[in-house]
Amino acid sequence: MPSLRAHVFRVPADGPDDVAGVEALFASGLQANNIVAVLGKTEGNGCVNDFTRGYATRSFETLFSRYGVDGVSIIMSGGTEGALSPHWTVFARETVETPGERALAIGVSRTPALSPEHLGRREQILLVAEGVKSAMRDAGIDDPADAHFVQIKCPLLTSRRIAEAEAAGRTVATHDTLKSMGLSRGASALGVAVALGEIDATSINDADICTRFDLFSRCASTSSGVELTDHEIIVLGMSAKWSGPLSIDHAVMRDAIDAHSVRKARERLPENSRLAAVLAKAEPDPSGEIDGRRHTMLDDSDIAGTRHARAFVGGVLAGIFGITDLYVSGGAEHQGPPGGGPVAIIVEKEQ
Amino acid sequence: MPSLRAHVFRVPADGPDDVAGVEALFASGLQANNIVAVLGKTEGNGCVNDFTRGYATRSFETLFSRYGVDGVSIIMSGGTEGALSPHWTVFARETVETPGERALAIGVSRTPALSPEHLGRREQILLVAEGVKSAMRDAGIDDPADAHFVQIKCPLLTSRRIAEAEAAGRTVATHDTLKSMGLSRGASALGVAVALGEIDATSINDADICTRFDLFSRCASTSSGVELTDHEIIVLGMSAKWSGPLSIDHAVMRDAIDAHSVRKARERLPENSRLAAVLAKAEPDPSGEIDGRRHTMLDDSDIAGTRHARAFVGGVLAGIFGITDLYVSGGAEHQGPPGGGPVAIIVEKEQ
Amino acid sequence: MPSLRAHVFRVPADGPDDVAGVEALFASGLQANNIVAVLGKTEGNGCVNDFTRGYATRSFETLFSRYGVDGVSIIMSGGTEGALSPHWTVFARETVETPGERALAIGVSRTPALSPEHLGRREQILLVAEGVKSAMRDAGIDDPADAHFVQIKCPLLTSRRIAEAEAAGRTVATHDTLKSMGLSRGASALGVAVALGEIDATSINDADICTRFDLFSRCASTSSGVELTDHEIIVLGMSAKWSGPLSIDHAVMRDAIDAHSVRKARERLPENSRLAAVLAKAEPDPSGEIDGRRHTMLDDSDIAGTRHARAFVGGVLAGIFGITDLYVSGGAEHQGPPGGGPVAIIVEKEQ
Amino acid sequence: MPSLRAHVFRVPADGPDDVAGVEALFASGLQANNIVAVLGKTEGNGCVNDFTRGYATRSFETLFSRYGVDGVSIIMSGGTEGALSPHWTVFARETVETPGERALAIGVSRTPALSPEHLGRREQILLVAEGVKSAMRDAGIDDPADAHFVQIKCPLLTSRRIAEAEAAGRTVATHDTLKSMGLSRGASALGVAVALGEIDATSINDADICTRFDLFSRCASTSSGVELTDHEIIVLGMSAKWSGPLSIDHAVMRDAIDAHSVRKARERLPENSRLAAVLAKAEPDPSGEIDGRRHTMLDDSDIAGTRHARAFVGGVLAGIFGITDLYVSGGAEHQGPPGGGPVAIIVEKEQ
Repeated sequence: MPSLRAHVFRVPADGPDDVAGVEALFASGLQANNIVAVLGKTEGNGCVNDFTRGYATRSFETLFSRYGVDGVSIIMSGGTEGALSPHWTVFARETVETPGERALAIGVSRTPALSPEHLGRREQILLVAEGVKSAMRDAGIDDPADAHFVQIKCPLLTSRRIAEAEAAGRTVATHDTLKSMGLSRGASALGVAVALGEIDATSINDADICTRFDLFSRCASTSSGVELTDHEIIVLGMSAKWSGPLSIDHAVMRDAIDAHSVRKARERLPENSRLAAVLAKAEPDPSGEIDGRRHTMLDDSDIAGTRHARAFVGGVLAGIFGITDLYVSGGAEHQGPPGGGPVAIIVEKEQ
Repeated sequence: MPSLRAHVFRVPADGPDDVAGVEALFASGLQANNIVAVLGKTEGNGCVNDFTRGYATRSFETLFSRYGVDGVSIIMSGGTEGALSPHWTVFARETVETPGERALAIGVSRTPALSPEHLGRREQILLVAEGVKSAMRDAGIDDPADAHFVQIKCPLLTSRRIAEAEAAGRTVATHDTLKSMGLSRGASALGVAVALGEIDATSINDADICTRFDLFSRCASTSSGVELTDHEIIVLGMSAKWSGPLSIDHAVMRDAIDAHSVRKARERLPENSRLAAVLAKAEPDPSGEIDGRRHTMLDDSDIAGTRHARAFVGGVLAGIFGITDLYVSGGAEHQGPPGGGPVAIIVEKEQ
Repeated sequence: MPSLRAHVFRVPADGPDDVAGVEALFASGLQANNIVAVLGKTEGNGCVNDFTRGYATRSFETLFSRYGVDGVSIIMSGGTEGALSPHWTVFARETVETPGERALAIGVSRTPALSPEHLGRREQILLVAEGVKSAMRDAGIDDPADAHFVQIKCPLLTSRRIAEAEAAGRTVATHDTLKSMGLSRGASALGVAVALGEIDATSINDADICTRFDLFSRCASTSSGVELTDHEIIVLGMSAKWSGPLSIDHAVMRDAIDAHSVRKARERLPENSRLAAVLAKAEPDPSGEIDGRRHTMLDDSDIAGTRHARAFVGGVLAGIFGITDLYVSGGAEHQGPPGGGPVAIIVEKEQ
Repeated sequence: MPSLRAHVFRVPADGPDDVAGVEALFASGLQANNIVAVLGKTEGNGCVNDFTRGYATRSFETLFSRYGVDGVSIIMSGGTEGALSPHWTVFARETVETPGERALAIGVSRTPALSPEHLGRREQILLVAEGVKSAMRDAGIDDPADAHFVQIKCPLLTSRRIAEAEAAGRTVATHDTLKSMGLSRGASALGVAVALGEIDATSINDADICTRFDLFSRCASTSSGVELTDHEIIVLGMSAKWSGPLSIDHAVMRDAIDAHSVRKARERLPENSRLAAVLAKAEPDPSGEIDGRRHTMLDDSDIAGTRHARAFVGGVLAGIFGITDLYVSGGAEHQGPPGGGPVAIIVEKEQ
């Protein structure tokens, strides 16, 4: 009985438009139409005026279009502070004639379009929860405990979308388009928590989104973009319907210096294995302190707090794993506990 | 026969002018005139226009003046990027009626003022080498192998100092004020290497400074600041003329992700001991790569490379030691191998 | 019948702690205890973590203390972007045996401390309004039309102050420390408008602060700093109780490129006069546009919008007046129309 | 006898990839293949890691390719600090059946690729000088006095290009990538000076580049970018072989506050004319002072000096011309006197 098999490639990038390394994979045998997702770290500031994300997305669209491939989920996270190295992580899957044996599983889904008036509100949480369940089915993951990382690209409000909603007599959660990005990330993360049974949907109100940070998912990673009105969802986990040498597990960092939890997660994975990818979220602790000691990330008006957090948590993780092409993404509303965040680890057993 | 005894205190700082925590030590029994040095991490940018160093220095001068104490070496290193926490490390020493037993030793010295035209040149190397020898004598350290950390605060060039030197018909090593900080740090570090016999003084030329990075000291830590024109030198090491529960050892990080060397150094120190202080240097790898992967620290025109490096190496060390009030100082020219740097660890045996 | 006489001195500063130029004025005959206020431009970022303001304030306090002078209003505005030059503007006043003849008048006052939970709310507006009236009385200005510039230094929220307020069971207007600076400036400016009868206090709600920018004062200039918790207020205007060669008038720039209004204000002042000081406010137009053309100041996550605005409006004014030691202060919420701001011009008639 | 006719369009840009405004010109009648050059201001940092230039260039290449147009000189200058507005200035030319009457003339050329080891050295000067002469011939400008603005886009050194050159056994002029931008701009400007007979080529050495600022061109404007390895050259001037309502003249600002020279240049142009474009260079005065007053642009380690200078000179020019979509480009090494720079003004006579 055949199974599915996942492939993960970490490819260095010389700049936001350097997709040559991915094209080289095609020459090495990767079927372009087996690619389901690209997660990129680009060298912009990761904030509002970071055009490296759009530039990289445009470059991949052009590449995939040349190969006749459509529907790849392209998720770009800006910011390679500290020694983080710009790179692409390519996820592919194929059917193989090997029996399933419990291995890394990848599932994707797309939700219906989100009405502007539902963004940053309960409706978004519920819509995303359905989408996550759909992606889990696509991945063949039945048990929520087998889901280790849920990456979501979610929409935001633009002036035009707000105007249209209001012209139709509806209210929106915010008139601040920048703030809508945080609300959308937060609601999406709570949607993951609902889908995985971490939180009871009936207990969450609109007002909890981006305020009650004691509510969070242990494995959500969300990012918002202007180019979509629905949600692109990627679930990474373990499934018996898949085969191959890849495995995934995850830690939840309690705070930015919680190396212990990360080492423990690594120890749960096969010992004789090489690292395939590390995917993490980071944020400045909103309390202004870590373990009773003040940090200055939130009072620094020269460098955005998310940039500080990526650099520092990048260092913590690089010290543990010994690599710098780590996917460390900023802005972790409801993604892990306040000041902490999820860290997914994918390894490949040596054969 | 009496011996000397060192004391080390890590004190949180609420701002560059918050010396209340140090004053509180006096109430707890620390004799103010036993203090020989204060190493501070302040929350400025650590570059040319970082006035938090001068502000903190002024605040300590005022404090010490109120207590009738003079001649304390005050070394402020700007930059608490990432989750690094602003703090002061206070070094004190006293004579005790206990025999010497090989323990942490502290010595200090101060050089004559450096003329702007000598900054970043051989003259600075030789001036510093004499100062380091003087501080070693002050510490009772005879064997260079017993010196584990040599901290130097050195001057820099400002537009004004350059103009004055040139008005007097002299040339300066650079017109770039930020670059002058690196040249000063580099020349000072080479001065340490000469004093410790790591490098032969006769073999170094002006042109080697900040270019021949194969020349370095394994335990120099130099930091430049606008607020002085001479050098303040502190030597930390082990000496049989000292007693007490404190010990020091050091690692030389090979690159920014070399956590292994740091863990090994910690293991060489007594196991049943608590961490008293960690003192480290960090810099962007001048090759533009770490272990074959590109970093973007040197191509970033928004954030100085030293700031990236402090945040990242701060993360590596915080992941190892579990604290954020680490002294991580940027700009490690000739201080450890290129892209790496020295890390001194001071522990106190439990009693 | 005697009158009061104002003196205004523009003094270059080599750094936040360089008060030598002011001390030199004492040697030239200025009575230290005639000084009522110092307005400084220091070279920090003018945002939350700008310690150059506190450092300069400390330096002046030390200087004045040495001369036995107390109660001088010291207002430091950070940020000398572009070619703006760090400097101090010293305001002094004395009684002379000359009849009043309508000349520059200076009055000062200080409010009680503001609780963190009142910052950016109605309570701050009312507190400031009382303070402005007190300063006008001090200046001998009866008619609000004779007030041309009201400078206020107001507090801000830090992570710590927020935590303390919330620990005491109180809410704060914002958790964003940079945003708290704007709210404080805005509420203070509305306090000026209330005091000058430009706005009716009963018509303003908490929600109007930093949102209803159609409400503004034509001559408020407010600046927030981490180093105080109350408000320091200086009123500049014309009064018949004063004498001497100094006169003041002001323009309200309609937007950041409104050079015309500034030139007109200069023309209203005596022709045969030299420039004594220019005091202005600048801000990024909140509409995101100036005269129909997009600006990028509010979407830039690398440089704070206030820094952009000071540099640019500094250029506009330097092109008109031909000097760079202009007091251009950022963040003009409710200080002049949105995107514009007040510009006070003080000249001294040639004699 | 026919003549050439120039057209100049200023088009707002919503982002680095927004070329819709230029495409709209095609619908309005502009022949796409009449376009010879696009000068853009994009909203990046204008320094080493500014990818908005490459992104914009890519977007225009895609647009022009769709219209079958090739060989347009696309010059992107990053940095819209202050209130400067992102925009494109489109230069087109066509042959008309009107006799020549002395009007704006446009010529372009492109040099061979520059080897990294020649960047910032004599070889670059000579290469550029040939290119400028070629562009003048293309414009029909015989007399160097008729050349009013020579815009050049030149390459820079990245960490990677430096490594490749050194791997091939060659030396480079600098290891500092930001500094390489200045050296390239400086050498290119000296190339203009040589071509226009302002400087004798035989008198310039490598060491003069970016040090002997008494050597400069009165109308060079050079801009370096990571996206090319050769030089794109555009010459703007007056020629009797051209016709139409457009005229150009230029000022040389003596320093950053020299509004007078700019107003004089505007007065030399026809009075009844509307502004078509303003093209200027700006830089921090290398002396650290303007008219005897210190500026802080060169000592600021948070914001690059070129960013300060663009914001400030942008303000000076916006105050004069009343528009914000000005082409103000940073880094004016050897482009006008130290601290000053050329300002070209193009107007269209009303008809």
